[in-house]
Amino acid sequence: MVIDVKKLYEKDHVGKEVILQGWIRSHRKQKEFGFIDFYDGTCFKSIQIIYESDIDDFEDIQKLKAGCSLTIEGVVVESPGAGQAFEVKAKKITLEGDSLEDYPIQPKRHTREFLREVAHLRPRTNLFQAVFRIRSVVAMAIHEYFQNNGFVYVHTPLLTTSDCEGSDQMFKVTTVDFDKLPKDENGKFDASKDLFGKQVYITGTGQLHGEAFAMAFKKIYTFGPTFRTEKSNTKTHANEFWMIEPEIAFCDLEGLMDIEEEMLKYVVKQVIDKCPKEMQFLDKFVENGLLDKLNKLVSSNFVRINYEDVIPILKKAAVKWDFEPEFGEDIAKEHEKYITEYFDAPVFITNWPKEIKPFYMKLNPDGKTVASVDLQVPGAGELMGGSQREEDFNKLVKRCDEMNIDKSSIDWFINLRKYGTCVHSGFGMGFERLLIYLTGVENIRDVIPFPRTPNNCDF
Amino acid sequence: MVIDVKKLYEKDHVGKEVILQGWIRSHRKQKEFGFIDFYDGTCFKSIQIIYESDIDDFEDIQKLKAGCSLTIEGVVVESPGAGQAFEVKAKKITLEGDSLEDYPIQPKRHTREFLREVAHLRPRTNLFQAVFRIRSVVAMAIHEYFQNNGFVYVHTPLLTTSDCEGSDQMFKVTTVDFDKLPKDENGKFDASKDLFGKQVYITGTGQLHGEAFAMAFKKIYTFGPTFRTEKSNTKTHANEFWMIEPEIAFCDLEGLMDIEEEMLKYVVKQVIDKCPKEMQFLDKFVENGLLDKLNKLVSSNFVRINYEDVIPILKKAAVKWDFEPEFGEDIAKEHEKYITEYFDAPVFITNWPKEIKPFYMKLNPDGKTVASVDLQVPGAGELMGGSQREEDFNKLVKRCDEMNIDKSSIDWFINLRKYGTCVHSGFGMGFERLLIYLTGVENIRDVIPFPRTPNNCDF
Repeated sequence: MVIDVKKLYEKDHVGKEVILQGWIRSHRKQKEFGFIDFYDGTCFKSIQIIYESDIDDFEDIQKLKAGCSLTIEGVVVESPGAGQAFEVKAKKITLEGDSLEDYPIQPKRHTREFLREVAHLRPRTNLFQAVFRIRSVVAMAIHEYFQNNGFVYVHTPLLTTSDCEGSDQMFKVTTVDFDKLPKDENGKFDASKDLFGKQVYITGTGQLHGEAFAMAFKKIYTFGPTFRTEKSNTKTHANEFWMIEPEIAFCDLEGLMDIEEEMLKYVVKQVIDKCPKEMQFLDKFVENGLLDKLNKLVSSNFVRINYEDVIPILKKAAVKWDFEPEFGEDIAKEHEKYITEYFDAPVFITNWPKEIKPFYMKLNPDGKTVASVDLQVPGAGELMGGSQREEDFNKLVKRCDEMNIDKSSIDWFINLRKYGTCVHSGFGMGFERLLIYLTGVENIRDVIPFPRTPNNCDF
Repeated sequence: MVIDVKKLYEKDHVGKEVILQGWIRSHRKQKEFGFIDFYDGTCFKSIQIIYESDIDDFEDIQKLKAGCSLTIEGVVVESPGAGQAFEVKAKKITLEGDSLEDYPIQPKRHTREFLREVAHLRPRTNLFQAVFRIRSVVAMAIHEYFQNNGFVYVHTPLLTTSDCEGSDQMFKVTTVDFDKLPKDENGKFDASKDLFGKQVYITGTGQLHGEAFAMAFKKIYTFGPTFRTEKSNTKTHANEFWMIEPEIAFCDLEGLMDIEEEMLKYVVKQVIDKCPKEMQFLDKFVENGLLDKLNKLVSSNFVRINYEDVIPILKKAAVKWDFEPEFGEDIAKEHEKYITEYFDAPVFITNWPKEIKPFYMKLNPDGKTVASVDLQVPGAGELMGGSQREEDFNKLVKRCDEMNIDKSSIDWFINLRKYGTCVHSGFGMGFERLLIYLTGVENIRDVIPFPRTPNNCDF
């Protein structure tokens, strides 16, 4: 019976016969024996295989290279060496798949830039074994949090005709032949001949559809891929990424912040608990102090402060800003950083000027600000952005008109306010931004299995 | 403190004061009192609210219509009426959001065709409260099964350049202005000027990328949206749907079938356990015998039979076929149905003729068949399709060439066979097909929150 390496670490197997299947990470040969650093991907830790010269095919075995896949039959024995409690003494080693000389993942340190060029192989390295297992564990923790708290998971559509976010930010989707474009009588592209009979985009948000479901299920969340056409080559931009967007009926801004804080703490705790080896590795090799940072977040109280109280703090600061903080303006990265350091805690900044926020946010009684909230986290910047939604039909229509939003493509969304509207709120969290924070890996290209950025859609 | 209706049903609240927030499903008025059938979306069951003429604003309250959102303060009391153990006697009813006269979801039976036209409101009906909560519970059950069994969840990319499935089945994605197409020197569309510098598609599968991760983590699964350009207006086709695609290293066809069977039984059991009210409703109003069908599946042993043994059974059948079963041909829906009825159980049909299966499936030693498997389920048809993958580099290249597959866009995938290849297998399951089976709802448009089909991308 084949056993996962993970199981070997879960209880004592010393003295037991086992069969393992996996790959060679490295191979150290001596004249009379050899050590194979062996992993099977089921846990972060590898296992040491020792074989001696009396094994069948000893000479062939000594030629096995990094990357080879093997079946190993052996016995778990206490390890005389330091660094591990046990190892497997092989009785039989069978080569399943050879690894050619040019195997790029040799047992040495590779740059992350190089590893992006072998994105199909990099998950075999320690770094990406850690990052992508954490990605999976975090995704599950997010589902657990919401499901345990009565949220319904909604698959909002990716194909959409509503371009209220600005269609210039959205990919167009088509089935036409670019060299035989259907044209209308004016010689313009005629989208009515396309599969859906109109111009269709890939969406940048599930919020509007999420609101419709919150008006039926009270608490919902989305978790799916999202797309932006941004032509930015930065460490934090990708054209394809995943987002989580909860929407909650009968929930105001205070209630929303409660959920954001509780969810984030839950997720961070889960990662610390479920990925101890991965986190130790990242703490040691990627971001010193990572675990301290995360443990601190879990036990901290998040600050809640109005935008109008943040600006004076920034203005009073003895800092030479690149951008001077001003009432009515967005705050820059340098300001975000200062504020979280000032409070030494995560900070919810609330009630922003309406001019710099989207049309659907709830207008406050002052007529100047909207009930929105950004969560700033030390070492991460803005992790979540949310708001109360405008639940008043007339006010929403007015905001659409003021901001030149095409109401026709979202009439169904606006009409939700006609039938049992209520105070409701929601937020969005970029999944990769969270992963960057949790792993200490600073480039978004290194937390996405196969990243898509401008001029880069390989693999 | 506001309490979810769900909590009222979890333990005895009789005698307690509660505050509820939700919506009116229907309203029955008498001269001296009234009954409101009230729901908040947190559970399938609604709750009866009773109010009497001594309540504040009695006359206004009597005017409240279906769809209004309310806050209700009251006391849980034992119910004198049949059909429920308790109800809430209201002390105060506050209108949160009115519902206009033309509210489409009146308390009567609506056709599903009509409800598709109000897709933003239909989740408020009993049917869609059941279907979409089940959708969420099933999604979570799938994640649980795989995570509990050590699978890593991988977000494979949707944007892709590999068109090995036939690019005519894939949507093209672009950022160009259709009326100002960049052209090359021959006057043809020049994709090198597009955001990614080449023609990019939305993928129809995550399998190829999934295999790369299975070669690192042993057991992985994907769960994400998938797209097909098919111009079919049938009950089972949509242009956007969700798929689950597990891939497992060191796993042969028998091992794959073990996983498929175990997973399906787990998911079905979870739905039966977690959604009893929803399932009773569907059993009564949508598919008589639904629960019997599902309970039977959980306790059944799935049959495993070779394709070559299936054809003689079909040929011997005393049935007048629309399509005569023939060796070398695919089997039709009528044959699928017959086979599951013949065995009175789910049936794995294995080892199909290579000509009717994709290039990546493992060629059997007979040189004629591939190690593929379709799972046929009574009342559902084909629920999953999978195979061993061709792990031999040379054989895979040969199959690509025989089938005119463009190897250049998937060289990284083919090259996985050069570095520690191993026997491995995977399958795909259409999420909506599973939901149709689990809910008894027969049209794919009714298990997707906002379905996309040809000429239909509304909402």
